[in-house]
Amino acid sequence: MVSIKEVAEKAGVSLKTVSRVINNEPGVKESTRQLVLRSVAELGYLPHAGARDMRTRRSQIIGLITDEIATTPFAVNIIKGAQDLAWAHNKILLIANTDGDKQKEDVAIRLMLERRVEGIIYATWFHRAVEIPDSIRGQPLVLVDCYSDDDLFPSVVPDEVQGGRDATEVLIEKGHRRIGFINLTSGVPAAIGRLQGYREALGAHGIPFDPTLVLNNESGQTDGGYEQVYILMSQPNPPSALFCGNDRTAMGAYQALKELGFRIPQDVAVIGFDNQEVIAAYLRPSLSTMALPHYEMGQWAVQYLLEQNNEWRKQEKLKCPYIVRESA
Amino acid sequence: MVSIKEVAEKAGVSLKTVSRVINNEPGVKESTRQLVLRSVAELGYLPHAGARDMRTRRSQIIGLITDEIATTPFAVNIIKGAQDLAWAHNKILLIANTDGDKQKEDVAIRLMLERRVEGIIYATWFHRAVEIPDSIRGQPLVLVDCYSDDDLFPSVVPDEVQGGRDATEVLIEKGHRRIGFINLTSGVPAAIGRLQGYREALGAHGIPFDPTLVLNNESGQTDGGYEQVYILMSQPNPPSALFCGNDRTAMGAYQALKELGFRIPQDVAVIGFDNQEVIAAYLRPSLSTMALPHYEMGQWAVQYLLEQNNEWRKQEKLKCPYIVRESA
Repeated sequence: MVSIKEVAEKAGVSLKTVSRVINNEPGVKESTRQLVLRSVAELGYLPHAGARDMRTRRSQIIGLITDEIATTPFAVNIIKGAQDLAWAHNKILLIANTDGDKQKEDVAIRLMLERRVEGIIYATWFHRAVEIPDSIRGQPLVLVDCYSDDDLFPSVVPDEVQGGRDATEVLIEKGHRRIGFINLTSGVPAAIGRLQGYREALGAHGIPFDPTLVLNNESGQTDGGYEQVYILMSQPNPPSALFCGNDRTAMGAYQALKELGFRIPQDVAVIGFDNQEVIAAYLRPSLSTMALPHYEMGQWAVQYLLEQNNEWRKQEKLKCPYIVRESA
Repeated sequence: MVSIKEVAEKAGVSLKTVSRVINNEPGVKESTRQLVLRSVAELGYLPHAGARDMRTRRSQIIGLITDEIATTPFAVNIIKGAQDLAWAHNKILLIANTDGDKQKEDVAIRLMLERRVEGIIYATWFHRAVEIPDSIRGQPLVLVDCYSDDDLFPSVVPDEVQGGRDATEVLIEKGHRRIGFINLTSGVPAAIGRLQGYREALGAHGIPFDPTLVLNNESGQTDGGYEQVYILMSQPNPPSALFCGNDRTAMGAYQALKELGFRIPQDVAVIGFDNQEVIAAYLRPSLSTMALPHYEMGQWAVQYLLEQNNEWRKQEKLKCPYIVRESA
């Protein structure tokens, strides 16, 4: 590492002058400033971030606490969105994976507070209520893909109602009137919001709501999707389209539809949710699905922390875009 | 935040005494030390990591530069392994995702050097040769799942030969003699190593190598696996088992085998590679596969950086374990 002393020697000025230039302090002639900057560039001198932070009393660090995000391929874009915007503002992101383990979370929080992070992003891999640890309640805090029951902290989540409505609209516009909906685990915010959106879309087109067309895949896994398609398609008047609460459910639905001899999308159209690349892009036919705004939520959270005097927002809902592929 | 001043007031001692206790310096009576520690605990005082680091001239930070790992579900365990061991040693991990973009990599490196990281882990999402940027060549450096062509830096990679050999052994032990191998992109280290392992296993059991049973899925994607199974299974003497270079290839193989009327594993056994959960666990039947030692490689890298005087190792190869499911 090149030291400030070497810069001073090369430029033929005092240490104090170099320090003034590096820290943008006044009292240095422009010609001297240029001379110092040239020496900095030529020697490849890098300022010491720790020293700068001690002086300015700002750590330039934003903490990001996640549960299972880093292992959830489609959710990891929260990290990417946050990192890209943080870097653009010369902030670094201190990422901690807790695996949903309280002890790991405590370690993560301690490490962040010892580093005097300027704010904390608390993110979960699926939209749910969380209990905010007392130790970070006094910090600038934004929740991503989750919210606190006491409504004391700003949060950014996907617009589940819009997602459910748009998916259903796509199928209605393709002429479908009997649309099966294999929803997520009962009671989670995504399941509640998307069912509302599904009903809104039906209502807007004068299609009566038929509760026998709606099932919950409680596990959210492939097997459940597979089993529920057998139930839905054995009805006397089976649906001609399926809206699946996630792409894993759609993966199971594909297997059941193929076994039952239905072609996708000619006999039964399918729309998933999540845009989980490894499934959606590689199923045959490729899966049309709703994407979750993970990248955008990560950016939103950093932006919120960067704005010191931003207006209080209890919850921001971001749009889930429709990703067109071959199954609908 | 509680200040050191408040700790001193509560304990009824001087600032200097508190500072001595916190920094484990000598010259404090044991009873006084206990008094101070009790005040620290009761007030929830947290030392300032930045101040400590300036004093000790150690940042306690390890940098982790990744390309696509954070979006590659099975590779993200490198981060988990590294984080868990780093935290256990009170180090924090500064993770930077570059998306394989040189400009982002430059930003990541600058941020890390400004923070005076104690070492850098350079990790890739698949086993390959990399060009190490000049700017980090002077740093303590470990490569994970990659290696530098000039052999100047220690690296940890999966034992591809052992992985290929064990997968083939499993199939041979189940009585298979004609084993199709849909390998990865020609020429990548994983493809070369696993082919060697496949041949070694055949040789050890006196089974002649038949080149018509080995194809490369150049894209490494599902479609390629699908197409190559049609080629392999239309041979006059088709294989009774398939060893697939990755789980996506196996996913395509499943679809082709089902269309062709083969049952898995009764008619054709299948083994994948990667243990990519979302595929391997959810295919029907679930996919037996070889796991990559990502978590272990992440831990190995941190351990190497922690040991100051460790012996020089050009390359460490870690075992790929066999994950038993239903397809073989």
